Amino acid sequence: MTHKIAILGASGYTGAELVRLIATHPAMEIVALSGERKAGMAMAEVFPHLRHLGLPVLTKIEDMDFSGVDLAFCALPHATSQAVIKDLPRDLKVVDLSADFRLRDPAEYEKWYGQPHAAVDLQKTAVYGLTEFYRDEIRAARLVAGTGCNAATGQYAIRPLIEAGVIDLDEIILDLKAGVSGAGRSLKENLLHAELSGGTHPYSAGGAHRHLGEFDQEFSKVAGRPVRIRFTPHLMPFNRGILATVYVKGDAPAIHAALADRYAAETFLEVLPFGALPSTRSIAGSNFVHIGVIADRLPGRTLVVAALDNLAKGSSGQAIQNANLMLGIEETAGLMLAPLFP
Amino acid sequence: MTHKIAILGASGYTGAELVRLIATHPAMEIVALSGERKAGMAMAEVFPHLRHLGLPVLTKIEDMDFSGVDLAFCALPHATSQAVIKDLPRDLKVVDLSADFRLRDPAEYEKWYGQPHAAVDLQKTAVYGLTEFYRDEIRAARLVAGTGCNAATGQYAIRPLIEAGVIDLDEIILDLKAGVSGAGRSLKENLLHAELSGGTHPYSAGGAHRHLGEFDQEFSKVAGRPVRIRFTPHLMPFNRGILATVYVKGDAPAIHAALADRYAAETFLEVLPFGALPSTRSIAGSNFVHIGVIADRLPGRTLVVAALDNLAKGSSGQAIQNANLMLGIEETAGLMLAPLFP
Amino acid sequence: MTHKIAILGASGYTGAELVRLIATHPAMEIVALSGERKAGMAMAEVFPHLRHLGLPVLTKIEDMDFSGVDLAFCALPHATSQAVIKDLPRDLKVVDLSADFRLRDPAEYEKWYGQPHAAVDLQKTAVYGLTEFYRDEIRAARLVAGTGCNAATGQYAIRPLIEAGVIDLDEIILDLKAGVSGAGRSLKENLLHAELSGGTHPYSAGGAHRHLGEFDQEFSKVAGRPVRIRFTPHLMPFNRGILATVYVKGDAPAIHAALADRYAAETFLEVLPFGALPSTRSIAGSNFVHIGVIADRLPGRTLVVAALDNLAKGSSGQAIQNANLMLGIEETAGLMLAPLFP
Amino acid sequence: MTHKIAILGASGYTGAELVRLIATHPAMEIVALSGERKAGMAMAEVFPHLRHLGLPVLTKIEDMDFSGVDLAFCALPHATSQAVIKDLPRDLKVVDLSADFRLRDPAEYEKWYGQPHAAVDLQKTAVYGLTEFYRDEIRAARLVAGTGCNAATGQYAIRPLIEAGVIDLDEIILDLKAGVSGAGRSLKENLLHAELSGGTHPYSAGGAHRHLGEFDQEFSKVAGRPVRIRFTPHLMPFNRGILATVYVKGDAPAIHAALADRYAAETFLEVLPFGALPSTRSIAGSNFVHIGVIADRLPGRTLVVAALDNLAKGSSGQAIQNANLMLGIEETAGLMLAPLFP
Repeated sequence: MTHKIAILGASGYTGAELVRLIATHPAMEIVALSGERKAGMAMAEVFPHLRHLGLPVLTKIEDMDFSGVDLAFCALPHATSQAVIKDLPRDLKVVDLSADFRLRDPAEYEKWYGQPHAAVDLQKTAVYGLTEFYRDEIRAARLVAGTGCNAATGQYAIRPLIEAGVIDLDEIILDLKAGVSGAGRSLKENLLHAELSGGTHPYSAGGAHRHLGEFDQEFSKVAGRPVRIRFTPHLMPFNRGILATVYVKGDAPAIHAALADRYAAETFLEVLPFGALPSTRSIAGSNFVHIGVIADRLPGRTLVVAALDNLAKGSSGQAIQNANLMLGIEETAGLMLAPLFP
Repeated sequence: MTHKIAILGASGYTGAELVRLIATHPAMEIVALSGERKAGMAMAEVFPHLRHLGLPVLTKIEDMDFSGVDLAFCALPHATSQAVIKDLPRDLKVVDLSADFRLRDPAEYEKWYGQPHAAVDLQKTAVYGLTEFYRDEIRAARLVAGTGCNAATGQYAIRPLIEAGVIDLDEIILDLKAGVSGAGRSLKENLLHAELSGGTHPYSAGGAHRHLGEFDQEFSKVAGRPVRIRFTPHLMPFNRGILATVYVKGDAPAIHAALADRYAAETFLEVLPFGALPSTRSIAGSNFVHIGVIADRLPGRTLVVAALDNLAKGSSGQAIQNANLMLGIEETAGLMLAPLFP
Repeated sequence: MTHKIAILGASGYTGAELVRLIATHPAMEIVALSGERKAGMAMAEVFPHLRHLGLPVLTKIEDMDFSGVDLAFCALPHATSQAVIKDLPRDLKVVDLSADFRLRDPAEYEKWYGQPHAAVDLQKTAVYGLTEFYRDEIRAARLVAGTGCNAATGQYAIRPLIEAGVIDLDEIILDLKAGVSGAGRSLKENLLHAELSGGTHPYSAGGAHRHLGEFDQEFSKVAGRPVRIRFTPHLMPFNRGILATVYVKGDAPAIHAALADRYAAETFLEVLPFGALPSTRSIAGSNFVHIGVIADRLPGRTLVVAALDNLAKGSSGQAIQNANLMLGIEETAGLMLAPLFP
Repeated sequence: MTHKIAILGASGYTGAELVRLIATHPAMEIVALSGERKAGMAMAEVFPHLRHLGLPVLTKIEDMDFSGVDLAFCALPHATSQAVIKDLPRDLKVVDLSADFRLRDPAEYEKWYGQPHAAVDLQKTAVYGLTEFYRDEIRAARLVAGTGCNAATGQYAIRPLIEAGVIDLDEIILDLKAGVSGAGRSLKENLLHAELSGGTHPYSAGGAHRHLGEFDQEFSKVAGRPVRIRFTPHLMPFNRGILATVYVKGDAPAIHAALADRYAAETFLEVLPFGALPSTRSIAGSNFVHIGVIADRLPGRTLVVAALDNLAKGSSGQAIQNANLMLGIEETAGLMLAPLFP
């Protein structure tokens, strides 16, 4: 059975990644695509790499017909997303890739995003989309909120350690290296090739990055008490991939065991042998997450490193994995593509 | 029905690309992998991006058992390949990715590769693997010789123009931009990141590049008289993709029509609208070829530009497409993956 | 003696490159900087790599005081430049880096730039800034028009061949690879790192690139009859450097000799030994041009390849070289910096 | 007065960087160059970007004549360096860029480098080359040991904080991002463009990196008690630049003040305004170090970030700065080149 899919916001990178993945998905068919500024254009013009696919022309959202559509992916900008989703048909399943429904507490939302939420009721019903930790809720959900890509990477590395009680909760440091596609297709000087290539720098440092709202919410929930981490993202001169380097206090073998146990049954989460550490190159283009653990020379201190593709497992791949659950499709359908290397 | 596949030379880039593509191929199963210097290692060690696959350990070729194997891909270095293939079981179908069986004339082989061929009899039986032009012969072949990746790109742009008689055969210039993975995984100073990134340079210029042997052979065959092109490859600071910029004399609309007609029924060959030109980014990671034509301001002069992925359609994707034909599988099976962008 | 310098348009790449080069120039001192949108900002904010220099704050042009200024570099956008320069004090020497004064014929200007020239009188007095070919005129000029960066590269390779009469004037093809900084700091989707890195594509192909106006003007002037070349630029995934691959008909040794003779006394023009070809990496960050010649396997056909840094010798380095002449300073002053590699 | 300089090991990146910097140095002249495997070659062949310089041909060390040479830079591989330097004339000043003389304790040397030191007497006399902290000793030294490039970056960020007593000595974490030229010109698979570009990964993690020997030695010396930091370097897909992200416990304004005070009189050390953080792009190609400090949202926790160019201030620029001191030249001579951006 083929499920009919709409993608709102198909002219950005996460939208294009959804199309790329659905192109070989055995049970999804794209029936509608929106792109406000590019309405009326063929996807082949907006993304020439998708020109071999027979895709609908981009339309405005107001001109979309959702009858017969089983599920909509919403890859719109933050704030726009909540305004759009609240007016969608109530029987339409929705996977949102924006930040709009990730935080459950409206006050937290306002704190991190600088404005009150415009769809507080909906916000309450949204399920947080970290698949391996919310699988049952996602299966039953009408609205799933995709996680931040950095937030996903950090949680895959840290969350099982909090669950297992094997680390000091007050001494968690996350130094993160983020590929530039995570910043989207927006026209900013610092995203130009001439500015970005050939170097690196930290951004939103010192506790300013919005994904901290997700870390605070989720880690505190798991721990049953407030957990606040230190988090420094760095912008990387490559397009895909996030590397999370996590400094924790705790016993390295116990930490490795906690991760290996937690993910033993998970298709997309690969815990490397103790002492081996991942590279973003080994997961680029795929839905896989690689996690490694090594002991520090200083006793009781451990390094955990996780890598995922921000556009795939960090957003669009995750979205499809969640949509598979929501539609009753095999969870891994369309997502077993091997990484692209070199 | 699943066909059993062996890959000889699985520790190089074309070997890894074969594994990547077969990973989601519906009718192929890898049963044996060789890697001389890395025999005994798991593929997860050699190529961590393939660690999620249940793959055989790398062995030496002499230790391989070919009983039950339907087809072997041979991704060995030039010269090694002919020595190995001549000793393989005669009922084993073989797709060779090296240069060893591309040239039909032993004298031409010796001229371009600097030594006599060690398997002249086999060489005579090999079919040249440019699928869209040798489909019937490939279907019936036991041994198919994969084309050079540059040679494929140039031929996709030029060959139909010779067939259609729409260009001056004495005035063909091919300026080619080649991604570095085409140089393989060999340890050479000029392939280091510190040397290669941030710039470009021509190599094997002036008529020295070995793929000219293929151009000479094929274009002359099609034209029924000697055709000699000028060819300058440039090494590019990116990993995947070849762009062929072809300067010809002939009527631009007629040239566009010749290409559009020739490839109208071909799944992997996309001729862009007249005046549009391709980018390597739009085909990376896929088996697609994009071709564009534009008229020059000078009457009677035309630019043809073709782009393909050297590891996919330029070698391993092409190899699988040919193997599909040889095994009676749907020609496009396993090859419909969309390009990866960004 | 130190000459006082103003830079109009210091917030773009050519402006920053002027500052970088003047930073170690023995006889120039920057006394004023303009930047319309960034007026009031310190250069350290706009270009942190220049923060160690004691530079004037950016102002608006209308607020600049030109008394005591010996020479102004004008690094403004095309069209803006002519409007500004026509109102500058007449005793102020000016080196313009825009396209506004490159073409001597107002009709040609209008043809290539789509609008009538706003300062036709000034245009007539401007000297074309290809230093090695207009040295005496530049020395005496009040207004020098910097060449296009692609135009400079192509002319260094081709111009001496026309002078020497060693090539067929109707069969010149220039395939050019241009680093992205040549496109400036403008916010365009195709200049984003995520779009540009990892591949290449042609642009302004078929005779549409504006630098053809310069080639037409200069080559025809040298030849004494119309010369029209074919020219295809390609956008490269690196920041600095242009490689011009030139296909000509003519005797290779004679062509090499023509170049070697013409540039024998030139500090910045290095003709490589016959058969050797340049790389953009070998000139990046410097004012040097490397040129190589190789014979094709086809008799009478020759490849000429030239490399220069678009921001240095292609614009800001050239501008300083010309300013040195105009101010009576040693021509090479401040320009002997070695290329940066790796 | 011009000082005569020899460079041993001129065919590697630090050797080439020495030549690049000396090319515009007002008081140094290169009179001899060695390169074992490339003896007999001109530098223009080994490093075409240096072809405009009139340089001596590469020789073997055993064929070098040191009479009249004032100072030798030794850019040889680790272990080779000590064997060579112990046989150099005793009146020849030497700046060593290898790791051989950095550690004062022979036991520490053996622990980190896996073999006993071959020149223990010399080792005792060597001065550690972190200029701003050993200026007087360097001025008087015959043999200066250049620091590790990572070790320099980390020390510039951390050392003044230990001196000033403003951080918790038991909670220092250094997450470092290192450009690939720091790995040298050696032929390793992971340094190939096809392997390295497009991603990142940690290496020598968990306390295995040899530069920890330097951190241990220097930080413990300054603190007057053992200091052991956690240190994770990551290999970056760019050529020049190191970014040190340092997580400390201490008051952010006090930390900023300690750095600003310590470096107030230093030409090459730029402490950014409080809250601003550096980028490697802003120092590439130069001898400058940029350092920034930001407070974390968690009270009492502070982020310090430092950036320098590994080939310049991290090795060859540092070496020249030290040589200037040893030869009685102005300390900044030849080193005021502005960074190259973009």
